[in-house]
Amino acid sequence: MEILEAIRTMRVIRRFSPEPIPAELLDTIIRAGRHAGSSKNLQRWAFIVVHDRSTLERLSKVGAFAGHVAGATVAIALVTPAVGPNDPWSIMWDLGRTAQNMTLAAWSLGIGSVPATVYDQPLARSILGYPEDHWCEYILSLGYPADPSDLTRSPKAGGRRPLDEMLHDERW
Amino acid sequence: MEILEAIRTMRVIRRFSPEPIPAELLDTIIRAGRHAGSSKNLQRWAFIVVHDRSTLERLSKVGAFAGHVAGATVAIALVTPAVGPNDPWSIMWDLGRTAQNMTLAAWSLGIGSVPATVYDQPLARSILGYPEDHWCEYILSLGYPADPSDLTRSPKAGGRRPLDEMLHDERW
Repeated sequence: MEILEAIRTMRVIRRFSPEPIPAELLDTIIRAGRHAGSSKNLQRWAFIVVHDRSTLERLSKVGAFAGHVAGATVAIALVTPAVGPNDPWSIMWDLGRTAQNMTLAAWSLGIGSVPATVYDQPLARSILGYPEDHWCEYILSLGYPADPSDLTRSPKAGGRRPLDEMLHDERW
Repeated sequence: MEILEAIRTMRVIRRFSPEPIPAELLDTIIRAGRHAGSSKNLQRWAFIVVHDRSTLERLSKVGAFAGHVAGATVAIALVTPAVGPNDPWSIMWDLGRTAQNMTLAAWSLGIGSVPATVYDQPLARSILGYPEDHWCEYILSLGYPADPSDLTRSPKAGGRRPLDEMLHDERW
């Protein structure tokens, strides 16, 4: 898929079909994440790929809006070094760039996605087993859309703030 | 450009040609940023687009590695609500997703980019005029590459950590 079209048409998918994601497509998605640029090329990320249904169901309890993980075909937990109030913003900025690569690559392959924010870090850690000096702020749910028409439906009007509200010329 | 190719081939560009960026292409890049998904669709971002050479030169002093801004054709300052130690990580995660959309869209149009981190917030604020309750953590430099072969050169080997170092199956 052409990149500008992928960016223009991408929508969040929260309900997934039972169709499995072929291993080579999942590999393409993960490699897209790996390719992202990062601050000083530090690549402060790791990906835990979860297929197991019972694990997905347990993971869906890590946050108030993580329910979609229970029905994901695959979840990718995005793990970084532990983040605290004094850690650089660049860890999450870089993670967002990685995630955008993954979700755009997925979309171009007809695969939908949505991120979940982890609120219960100890629960996520107990399920996923990442060490105390690491952190999982986001989990991506992935799968073919339950409603395939989601892939081609036009973006709804009013979904984004008007451009002139967010754009400044030369100075604020 | 096909999205997987854009992701695979994109490289950071720090030196730019004097060729101007046509207004409609710059508009495409900015709209790509605007299209990004964000936490609760909050779209906590604003873009200050800078063409003025003397402003670009002043902006290049906001951080130790921001020198490339002086030679950018255009800089886009990425402004968010003010961030402090207690603010959610999602502001920078969302900003990373927006920036990735912009840089991928630019790349697909033959336009290179590189982000600069702002270390001197008061200086950036005095140059750009954003209010005290806002923050500018990153500035994107954009332009056609000074060396056009950068657009097609293969990524250098060893630029990314091996996949098996960052990938975990089901559990860490």
